[in-house]
Amino acid sequence: MPTSADFIQTQDHLDQLNQALDSGALVQVRRLLDSLPAADVAHVLESSPPKARAVLWRLIEIDREREVLPFLSDEIRSQFLRQMDTEEVASITEGLEADDIADILQQLPDRVIREVLELMDLQDRQRVEHVLSYPEDTAGGLMNTDAITVRPKTLIEVVLRYLRRHDELPEMMDNLIVVNRRDEYIGLLPLRRVLVSDPGTTVREIMNTDIDAIPANMDDREVANLFERNDWVSAPVVDSDGKMIGRITIDDVVDVIREDADHSLMSLAGLGEDEDTFGSVLKTAPRRAVWLGINLLTAFMASAVINVFEATLDKVVALAILMPIVASMGGVAGTQTLTVVIRGIALGQVGSNNSTWLINKELLVGVINGLCWSLVVAVAAALWFDDLLIGAIIAGATVINLITAALAGATIPILLDKLNIDPALAGGVALTTITDIVGFMSFLGLATWFYI
Amino acid sequence: MPTSADFIQTQDHLDQLNQALDSGALVQVRRLLDSLPAADVAHVLESSPPKARAVLWRLIEIDREREVLPFLSDEIRSQFLRQMDTEEVASITEGLEADDIADILQQLPDRVIREVLELMDLQDRQRVEHVLSYPEDTAGGLMNTDAITVRPKTLIEVVLRYLRRHDELPEMMDNLIVVNRRDEYIGLLPLRRVLVSDPGTTVREIMNTDIDAIPANMDDREVANLFERNDWVSAPVVDSDGKMIGRITIDDVVDVIREDADHSLMSLAGLGEDEDTFGSVLKTAPRRAVWLGINLLTAFMASAVINVFEATLDKVVALAILMPIVASMGGVAGTQTLTVVIRGIALGQVGSNNSTWLINKELLVGVINGLCWSLVVAVAAALWFDDLLIGAIIAGATVINLITAALAGATIPILLDKLNIDPALAGGVALTTITDIVGFMSFLGLATWFYI
Repeated sequence: MPTSADFIQTQDHLDQLNQALDSGALVQVRRLLDSLPAADVAHVLESSPPKARAVLWRLIEIDREREVLPFLSDEIRSQFLRQMDTEEVASITEGLEADDIADILQQLPDRVIREVLELMDLQDRQRVEHVLSYPEDTAGGLMNTDAITVRPKTLIEVVLRYLRRHDELPEMMDNLIVVNRRDEYIGLLPLRRVLVSDPGTTVREIMNTDIDAIPANMDDREVANLFERNDWVSAPVVDSDGKMIGRITIDDVVDVIREDADHSLMSLAGLGEDEDTFGSVLKTAPRRAVWLGINLLTAFMASAVINVFEATLDKVVALAILMPIVASMGGVAGTQTLTVVIRGIALGQVGSNNSTWLINKELLVGVINGLCWSLVVAVAAALWFDDLLIGAIIAGATVINLITAALAGATIPILLDKLNIDPALAGGVALTTITDIVGFMSFLGLATWFYI
Repeated sequence: MPTSADFIQTQDHLDQLNQALDSGALVQVRRLLDSLPAADVAHVLESSPPKARAVLWRLIEIDREREVLPFLSDEIRSQFLRQMDTEEVASITEGLEADDIADILQQLPDRVIREVLELMDLQDRQRVEHVLSYPEDTAGGLMNTDAITVRPKTLIEVVLRYLRRHDELPEMMDNLIVVNRRDEYIGLLPLRRVLVSDPGTTVREIMNTDIDAIPANMDDREVANLFERNDWVSAPVVDSDGKMIGRITIDDVVDVIREDADHSLMSLAGLGEDEDTFGSVLKTAPRRAVWLGINLLTAFMASAVINVFEATLDKVVALAILMPIVASMGGVAGTQTLTVVIRGIALGQVGSNNSTWLINKELLVGVINGLCWSLVVAVAAALWFDDLLIGAIIAGATVINLITAALAGATIPILLDKLNIDPALAGGVALTTITDIVGFMSFLGLATWFYI
């Protein structure tokens, strides 16, 4: 009997695996891998540096590989797939669910997709082609075609007999889907309700018609929000004619939620949400370089602003010492606002009805914090350089930059979202460019006014 | 029959609601609120500024409030709860699941908790007290006590009859839990399997013993990782003696996953993951201020470093113009590394076995990008100021700072995690402090060496 004490500790397994790998005890590694659930094997692969990863993958047999593939991130899965030929891809997708096969195929060149589809039997091929016909990031691309449908007139008794004829019911099946003669979605029949109902009642009497089906072209983020808000385990998907074409299950939605939440975090640092923590140096360096290049450009723009005030800097060297403070405070305040608004947009909270209120609120917060901290900055700077004027100047610049930061932090993502540009990716650079430039310009500008 | 065309569009409802609110048509608002599912009402409340939020909440009746509460974020829920007296809290928790009640009570003062518990009937009180006895962020705090247990010797026929005696089965119930006479967990009996099995078989013959129960003291993040990796809908929870005490369902786990993923994003900007997008100005400003204060301190530290090189700056004003570039490049490169490592830690990918490899990889990426971009910076600076020496100096400083940034970005979160300090919260400030100081010091230091 398993108790909490012998509960699987993945990190322990990882440590054991790595010790075995280091000592070259491959037989032992293989035994350890075989003893782990497929999901844990995927986790081990994702947590391993490239060389160990390649060795581990070679030690896994094809039946195991098939189980492990759906748990791998897109990035790492496509690494493995690209090393396979068409037959291998075809054999590794055998028996997988249609949405998992579609996920895998989508990462391959069109030629390979066609060849793999040709190797499938007709029914499987049609199912996969159906899923492939919808973009990956829509309800259609997320769905599975393994739903069990029933008609409203059927007796529960008959439903139970019908179910018993199956060897196994699909995973995460909490509802049967009720459709009419034209296969149009009518409602859901929860299995929980089937089990407690009188066998003599009809499906119609106990089915749930409150829940609408998901249109196949719905954005996957919206699908995730619906699942999250309604605590669904699975939900039916219909095409534009209201015809039942599949169902989406919570396990795939959890992946969307995780990716979606990761997306904002990673994008703000100029990284893809698929970034492989243990990717090779040669793959990682060029990706990171692009972002550094963009930043370099904006840094030179800020320098060009400072350059305008060369004469002032030449005269009052204290300005050079203090100027990073104004820019830095603006950057921090702006990033706070930006992050809140970006998350609000991702959660579907920010719309045309409340964005004005939100911008005003952030602006007011900026004014209050600007006034508060500019006082502290002023006193500190005046004491440091024994110069009241420099205190007043840095206070003014700090207020200006914190208000600018709040305004930019709130409006940039809302604007970018309206223009269909990813606010998380473009917002960060845009914001710090503005807070740097306004920071330097207001501080050195005010200084030039008063000193020169 | 619902089709994709009449699919609920929350944003539309929000717009309608706000128009009705603005025009003071409260009857219409109430009707709209009544027509929405509880989860959507919660979303509407979370997407509304404070005044509208208060008006909306007053328009919702107590039976509805009870349904809406579990969907609200902790922050907003506790706002509403703090305005209620003990009787109201007691009546609003009536009929909720034990984990939801525990969630609600945990946000109230101890005195109120005791009073509310006293108002409950004995069975409910014991259930809630049981959940309350575990910390909120553990498996015990997440669990529900509504599991249905069966014995291994029971016939499926008997199980089916037993289930039929219920009016309703608990939500998200995909498994019955198999326990022995001492209530110790033995295995799971999937409902999917009950439905396709011969009524004459016993539970023991078809139960699943592969899945270990979750110990009640397991961290909720680890629970979420297990659910995500194993595609569970629900899982049994056992105490330290292996006794079955409850079950965790995916809906609560999804909240953990969302909060966990949000946590890194929000913490890096010095915000709580509970930050209310539409919180009032007076609540928001002081929270943000703390972070600005910490940053101000580090900004002054960077200024103190610049101050050391006052004489050099006084002589070569070009240095003041270029110095933000070195600091900024370091900040961006370091943030990339920091973000990747923080996410790796959150996903449980980074451990003692692979952290050395990870640090080395990030270091190498830093060296490569440092060399690449320092060349570009050097050429640009040399051309701008028509001075080869300044090009060489800024190149050297950029290389030094990008390598420092990579090293700091990778080691700081790993170190903080070992010290049990939240890497996302403390990591960002620590990193930019280092990249600013090293950036200014290396650039102005090299310049002092060569120019003075």
